[in-house]
Amino acid sequence: MTAWKEYQEQHKDRFLNELLDLLRIPSVSAKSEHKADMLKCADVVKASLLAAGADTVTIYETEGHPIVYGEKIIDPSKPTVLVYGHYDVQPAEPLELWNSPAFEPTIIDGKIFARGSCDDKGQFYMHVKALEILVKTNTLTNNIKFCIEGEEEVGSPNLGKFVSANKELLKADCVLISDTAMLSLDTPSMDVGVRGLSYIEVEVTGPNRDLHSGVYGGAIANPITILAKMIASMHDENNHITIPGFYDDVVNSTDEERALMAKAPFNEQEYKDELGVKELWGEKGYSTMERTGIRPTMELNGIWGGYIGEGAKTVLPSKAFAKISARLVPNQSSETITNLIINYLQKIAPTNVTVKATLHHGGEPYMTPIDSKGYQAAAKAIETTFGKQPIPVRGGGSIPICSLFEKELGIKIIFMGFGLDSDNLHSPNEKYNIKNYYKGIETIPYFHKYFTEMA
Amino acid sequence: MTAWKEYQEQHKDRFLNELLDLLRIPSVSAKSEHKADMLKCADVVKASLLAAGADTVTIYETEGHPIVYGEKIIDPSKPTVLVYGHYDVQPAEPLELWNSPAFEPTIIDGKIFARGSCDDKGQFYMHVKALEILVKTNTLTNNIKFCIEGEEEVGSPNLGKFVSANKELLKADCVLISDTAMLSLDTPSMDVGVRGLSYIEVEVTGPNRDLHSGVYGGAIANPITILAKMIASMHDENNHITIPGFYDDVVNSTDEERALMAKAPFNEQEYKDELGVKELWGEKGYSTMERTGIRPTMELNGIWGGYIGEGAKTVLPSKAFAKISARLVPNQSSETITNLIINYLQKIAPTNVTVKATLHHGGEPYMTPIDSKGYQAAAKAIETTFGKQPIPVRGGGSIPICSLFEKELGIKIIFMGFGLDSDNLHSPNEKYNIKNYYKGIETIPYFHKYFTEMA
Repeated sequence: MTAWKEYQEQHKDRFLNELLDLLRIPSVSAKSEHKADMLKCADVVKASLLAAGADTVTIYETEGHPIVYGEKIIDPSKPTVLVYGHYDVQPAEPLELWNSPAFEPTIIDGKIFARGSCDDKGQFYMHVKALEILVKTNTLTNNIKFCIEGEEEVGSPNLGKFVSANKELLKADCVLISDTAMLSLDTPSMDVGVRGLSYIEVEVTGPNRDLHSGVYGGAIANPITILAKMIASMHDENNHITIPGFYDDVVNSTDEERALMAKAPFNEQEYKDELGVKELWGEKGYSTMERTGIRPTMELNGIWGGYIGEGAKTVLPSKAFAKISARLVPNQSSETITNLIINYLQKIAPTNVTVKATLHHGGEPYMTPIDSKGYQAAAKAIETTFGKQPIPVRGGGSIPICSLFEKELGIKIIFMGFGLDSDNLHSPNEKYNIKNYYKGIETIPYFHKYFTEMA
Repeated sequence: MTAWKEYQEQHKDRFLNELLDLLRIPSVSAKSEHKADMLKCADVVKASLLAAGADTVTIYETEGHPIVYGEKIIDPSKPTVLVYGHYDVQPAEPLELWNSPAFEPTIIDGKIFARGSCDDKGQFYMHVKALEILVKTNTLTNNIKFCIEGEEEVGSPNLGKFVSANKELLKADCVLISDTAMLSLDTPSMDVGVRGLSYIEVEVTGPNRDLHSGVYGGAIANPITILAKMIASMHDENNHITIPGFYDDVVNSTDEERALMAKAPFNEQEYKDELGVKELWGEKGYSTMERTGIRPTMELNGIWGGYIGEGAKTVLPSKAFAKISARLVPNQSSETITNLIINYLQKIAPTNVTVKATLHHGGEPYMTPIDSKGYQAAAKAIETTFGKQPIPVRGGGSIPICSLFEKELGIKIIFMGFGLDSDNLHSPNEKYNIKNYYKGIETIPYFHKYFTEMA
């Protein structure tokens, strides 16, 4: 389809500049101070969909941040693709580790450095531009719906209600999501599964106030020491998670699947060098790819307590806190695991302290079948523009709403991600290669074409 | 001496207001942003000594914060008392836990709430006012020197050099310090020892940048998890410190001393209620008073790493940090223990991470004999104004310069403290009872009188 390529070539600078403008809005859903930025961002997303050719776009208020819904219906009898994405981004902290300001997108060596460049503004915006190409070249063969939410990074607390209440509006033949990575532009891949999530915050309280560590040290349990012991107890010497029942519902991968995974290109030395570590770490008995794909994990996302400023302060603190999240694999239930973790933390806490553990958010693991029409259409689209069949892989991250869409709408999710694992998602200096951005925009129209043809 | 009491009664409101003014200066030595406040505070201390009747007062510059030295010499052949104190204070954080601003002294129920009210502005200033009383009533019978430093809360890094270089200037018959607590106004006590200190900061580095905890979780060692395991390993199930050699140099207290300590009034239920804990904690085999007095301890003063803001961020952090301090008892060497801790942390660190452990500051433990003239004079002074002999007790805190004074000047240190353990030293809502402040001012002149008589 030379018309698509021509149109893209002609407008590529604008396609890039529009994304940069979107990245300038600090739409951090986790922080209440960014409420106005979230509203502004939703407005910009709405305007961009209308400009691209959507018939109607509506901003749906929720109890949290709004959801932008748009659609281009050419013929209700034709196949319909529901594009899901999110305009919210992770907090940018720690700010001092960014080489350029997180919300002033900076292009270096063909890469856009900005919070959200890859996750997920850069990726969902490819779909907006693909819509524009299809509409402006009069080549759209199917219906496209967009559901772009503002709470993915905080666990999509309000999307479920919206989806249940709007099943007819969202009715489609598959959900298409670009919010994952591929191995590289040379080795395209598609995720066939994402892990689930249980994200918990724990607060350990010792004495009712901060104390002098000399006067009271040795008499009173130090909540940091107790919290450290609790955390330490969560992995055994083989880095298995020790919480009773944690692995009970895990569906183990077959030897066949593991053999297939072992064939995916993976250079351990390069991986270590790129991360600056001497040794990898993880559950004994599984390869690195398996540990990040088919196995559940438990990570400390944050810890704090006592004096954390410059210099020394001899304090025995009243409280210590940690943010802990588990990644879950198929058949594990987020609710079950959340309860197991919370109960475990409360049970192992000694009577010298009080422990409060609460859920931030969770999400179910999800697997998509590779023989579905959607997966086949995506694989063919990638083959068309990359010249290679994508390798099916398991992603380590989580997109909590997948199981929700499948349950409520009865359709499969297709993960057609164009990011890279090295894009520093959730980290300082998040980036997205302009090449990947353009390649995504080039590939998506083929997905719609093939999906229509296969339907 | 009715003249003393009359003078104090006449000027008591001014004595209080002058202290409040001193407390309004945020002289936080640990934070570079308070450098100007430190200089201002030193100036105010100088002026107050001159106003009280000191002959000369000099501000000695150091590589850090200045030392204020003043003296009132009536006759070089008379006994000389060197008063040591510090005008610097601990950082006020966490600010949100203060009921009134830390540097806006607020009087509630006869207590002055302010950072430094007890530690040590309120306590050293009693000596300034005692000097005024003695001078203005023409009753001074000995020489008094003042050495008020600005770096006690950061480990007195520059005092040693000053003392060695000014032995003649500082020459005295004893050092008198009010920087400790007594059991209560009803049960006066005097410290006969203070613990030493080794204060260390440890930095654990995993990957070279913050990572997405889904994409990399399970593949890479999480520095928070590793740090937690390192901390957890430092106490065994009996809360003994596990670092090899840690207890080697401890001089165990005799059964006699332990029996004497057991007689000091201690109500465990009141102690627990006051701190809001269900159970106490500490080294098995020792009473609470023993654990905070005659036994070394290891406390976590701060910990931080990863995302510590509002909400959730799924990050596998690059670094985790902790501030750790040990309290030392007689015959333990701060340098030896510091090296033991640093070596231990580096040795137990797995190869998945790198560990940097550095000393913030240290100080030696110190014991003072109760048969010295200084101790006897202080005990008699307290008996005079309180109507009761003080009980000798071991303090849990540290005054790192004690062993330095003894070594360089060859004299004993007398701890005549008027604070209370419940004064929230180093914590939010630090306080000092006005009663204790006045009682101290009333008692100190007797110390000088008796010390001269005994000499």
